[in-house]
Amino acid sequence: MTRPDALTFREEVRPGDAARVGEIVSSTGFFHDHEVAVAVELVEERLRDGMGSGYLFLFAERDGLAVGYSCYGEIACTRGSYDLYWIVVHQDCRGQGIGGRLLRATEERIAAAGGRAVWVETSGRPQYRPTREFYLRSGYAQEAVMRDFYDAGDDKVLYVKRLR
Amino acid sequence: MTRPDALTFREEVRPGDAARVGEIVSSTGFFHDHEVAVAVELVEERLRDGMGSGYLFLFAERDGLAVGYSCYGEIACTRGSYDLYWIVVHQDCRGQGIGGRLLRATEERIAAAGGRAVWVETSGRPQYRPTREFYLRSGYAQEAVMRDFYDAGDDKVLYVKRLR
Repeated sequence: MTRPDALTFREEVRPGDAARVGEIVSSTGFFHDHEVAVAVELVEERLRDGMGSGYLFLFAERDGLAVGYSCYGEIACTRGSYDLYWIVVHQDCRGQGIGGRLLRATEERIAAAGGRAVWVETSGRPQYRPTREFYLRSGYAQEAVMRDFYDAGDDKVLYVKRLR
Repeated sequence: MTRPDALTFREEVRPGDAARVGEIVSSTGFFHDHEVAVAVELVEERLRDGMGSGYLFLFAERDGLAVGYSCYGEIACTRGSYDLYWIVVHQDCRGQGIGGRLLRATEERIAAAGGRAVWVETSGRPQYRPTREFYLRSGYAQEAVMRDFYDAGDDKVLYVKRLR
């Protein structure tokens, strides 16, 4: 028997996911409106173009409601390099280890699909320190810093986890 | 008076450019068919969506015929970071300094548009050594190596030129 608050994972993408992804991403207070719009657009692209969109999703659900999700895909012109585009947990459910479990579940699916490595990037700004620590704690290695990439004073920090 | 063999630059994109870009990219013998198709698609996207495509082009012409081109654009979610997606000179015109002139002319346009930096990537495989040397010779600094990015044994090498 599954506990009502147990976490389950779902790869299938449904029409209602676009709005829910918007809620999850907005809830964090971490992203600009135009970034929320991009997150929602990726769900819509996937619904419209299917696997041809190149966007794979994994939803972490509790009691049938998505409380977090990841969006990832094989990087064009590579063999087995995957980009983790988004991984977000709803603000109401943070601090419960959901992000870590979602990340591991995502990595398992990438490995099963033949992926060699997961690449992920974030900003070097102070507010992203918890994000950077999350990746380091999750076994990611810092591979590069692209100074002033996002803006003057806003570096891009690139992490990788090798799966084999 | 312009010498008939003098190089001129053109930013406007015309319908005939899709086929010519295919010829230029194919002529080098350097790219797979699916890579040639991507190069052509970017021209088609630009023709269809205009500046909204995010793809800017610069054609180097001699006697009215494009002998090389660059394709570049501001990277999404950045302020002033430009990606140089393609820079190719037709095989028949190589070794004449056209690539260097085209690169400088592209950088001038990026700087005029407020760009802070040009980012460009290539493979670490031996066959790309002339490409890597071209960027270093042109004032680009190697910013990062992403080991095994394209494939096992095929690194991505990232260069940057700061414009201000």
